[in-house]
Amino acid sequence: MSGDLGPRVAISAAQLFVAQYPDVDLLLVGNESLLLPSVSKHKSYSARLSVLHAAEVVAMSDDPLFALRHKKGSSMWLSLEQLRGGKVDACVSAGNTGALLAMSKFLVKTFPGVDRPAICKPMPVDMGLTYMLDLGANINCTAGQLHQFAQMGNVLSKAGGVVSPRVALLNIGSEEQKGTEVLQLARQLMINDSRINYSGFVEASAIFSGVVDVIVCDGFHGNIALKASEGVARFAQEKMFKIAHKNALNKFLSTLAWPLLRQMRRELDPSSYNGASLLGLQKPVIKSHGNANINAFLQALIVAREQVVRQIPLLIQKEFQLN
Amino acid sequence: MSGDLGPRVAISAAQLFVAQYPDVDLLLVGNESLLLPSVSKHKSYSARLSVLHAAEVVAMSDDPLFALRHKKGSSMWLSLEQLRGGKVDACVSAGNTGALLAMSKFLVKTFPGVDRPAICKPMPVDMGLTYMLDLGANINCTAGQLHQFAQMGNVLSKAGGVVSPRVALLNIGSEEQKGTEVLQLARQLMINDSRINYSGFVEASAIFSGVVDVIVCDGFHGNIALKASEGVARFAQEKMFKIAHKNALNKFLSTLAWPLLRQMRRELDPSSYNGASLLGLQKPVIKSHGNANINAFLQALIVAREQVVRQIPLLIQKEFQLN
Repeated sequence: MSGDLGPRVAISAAQLFVAQYPDVDLLLVGNESLLLPSVSKHKSYSARLSVLHAAEVVAMSDDPLFALRHKKGSSMWLSLEQLRGGKVDACVSAGNTGALLAMSKFLVKTFPGVDRPAICKPMPVDMGLTYMLDLGANINCTAGQLHQFAQMGNVLSKAGGVVSPRVALLNIGSEEQKGTEVLQLARQLMINDSRINYSGFVEASAIFSGVVDVIVCDGFHGNIALKASEGVARFAQEKMFKIAHKNALNKFLSTLAWPLLRQMRRELDPSSYNGASLLGLQKPVIKSHGNANINAFLQALIVAREQVVRQIPLLIQKEFQLN
Repeated sequence: MSGDLGPRVAISAAQLFVAQYPDVDLLLVGNESLLLPSVSKHKSYSARLSVLHAAEVVAMSDDPLFALRHKKGSSMWLSLEQLRGGKVDACVSAGNTGALLAMSKFLVKTFPGVDRPAICKPMPVDMGLTYMLDLGANINCTAGQLHQFAQMGNVLSKAGGVVSPRVALLNIGSEEQKGTEVLQLARQLMINDSRINYSGFVEASAIFSGVVDVIVCDGFHGNIALKASEGVARFAQEKMFKIAHKNALNKFLSTLAWPLLRQMRRELDPSSYNGASLLGLQKPVIKSHGNANINAFLQALIVAREQVVRQIPLLIQKEFQLN
């Protein structure tokens, strides 16, 4: 029901998703007077799209603790209740991140040994993906928590087919004496952990270079890196559009080269990389970007399905049982 | 003498610079057996290019304190001595940032009231520029130091023609209760400062959106935002290049649209935005990116000239005398 562009984005993405993945059923949780007509319109998939009514919505501006205490009739709460009860296998939301975290921790719970869930996203690199966490769930982290994030990112990267993921800590230089005390302690924990292929400190430029498979950081640093990246991507897209329309010659050239420019725009589109996992929870909860368009929300749904198919929560549980 | 690509980049940029700006003379400090031949080759400008021999170089890997103590014959040290003694008006280096900061603090000194110099760079936005500081000089900052950075950024933006610069604090959300204790204290200092047009917290996506004129942060956060941005820009450029060369059709189309693609590449080229100021020092010291190419190093020289013409250090001194 939430997201900056309203529920229509989620509904359209849901329809595309069930069309694309015949092994998936979807439960849409929200205002049924809005959801039912859109579902019944698409007869071919209507058996696989059902609706659960929720009278309330968590607003983007709601304080997370307020939402946790007072919005038990919201679409977010009811969705997570369905997940906890085993009625669904994963939950996707484009809503208030803080509220989603608070409600998920309360209803879905983290595994024993996991202090806090971390927000994790695959970042595009030339070959494959680099997983980055935490992207904003935890402002301050202890070295032990950063080590837990490393373990979870390691599991996710392995499940994606990387045999021995290179795991790095985000810092402002790659020299081993650099950074804060917390980073120095986290470094030591990772060196001592034989299950992690620790690859040292990396600067934020490494996020998109593919030199490592997992980048670990606290939520403040991760959020800054993520938002700065999105800002540059948007700036570049707008700049390219402006140049293409600057004058008659450019317009003509961009018409000629349109198939090329379309490929560039599509590959550089940040919405292709939507869908952040709240790792450490006992079941998959996926956060879509608040301003996701239909394609971006579809990507978040695909991430949710992947987490179920790859049994990510089970793998994380097993990893932490070894500790 | 330094920089990842060696002194040839600086020498070529120096020649372009004196050709472009008839009001500037340049002193090249470094190994004269390398510098003299290149200077004498260009007879038309040789009167405005002189050489000061330095036997040593600060290596990129040198510890800043080691360099400060033991590299008093280096090109970096001698350049800053020339600056301190008034023989030159500004100093530009592509070398070791930590050493440049340490030597600048020792030789050039900050103004009374300025605890620490901050690294400041103009970031490209659609219209004009957004100044961001600190980009990596200070890992941990007090609220008072962030407030000083705000004052310096404010001066720089005003000198660039903005009448009442909108000054913001970098945070992981724009809501006023968000962020760390230091950020909350800094916010209060900025609200109470009538000389600053405080515009609230901004997320890192605002760096490139032009919603504010100055963004203040500690060096750790600033460095992450800057490096992440550079990483995305490089990723986008490589992706565009790959797509343009993917197959025969794309190669043909990119040849047709070459003037358009060249404009896009040039406008999105991070090297157009090279040249970071070490604000708070009594004279202009400019840090060029270590991997700057000729065009990028030229930009850093242009920034240095601008700081002299606009009398930035004097303006900062006056601002702090009002405190």
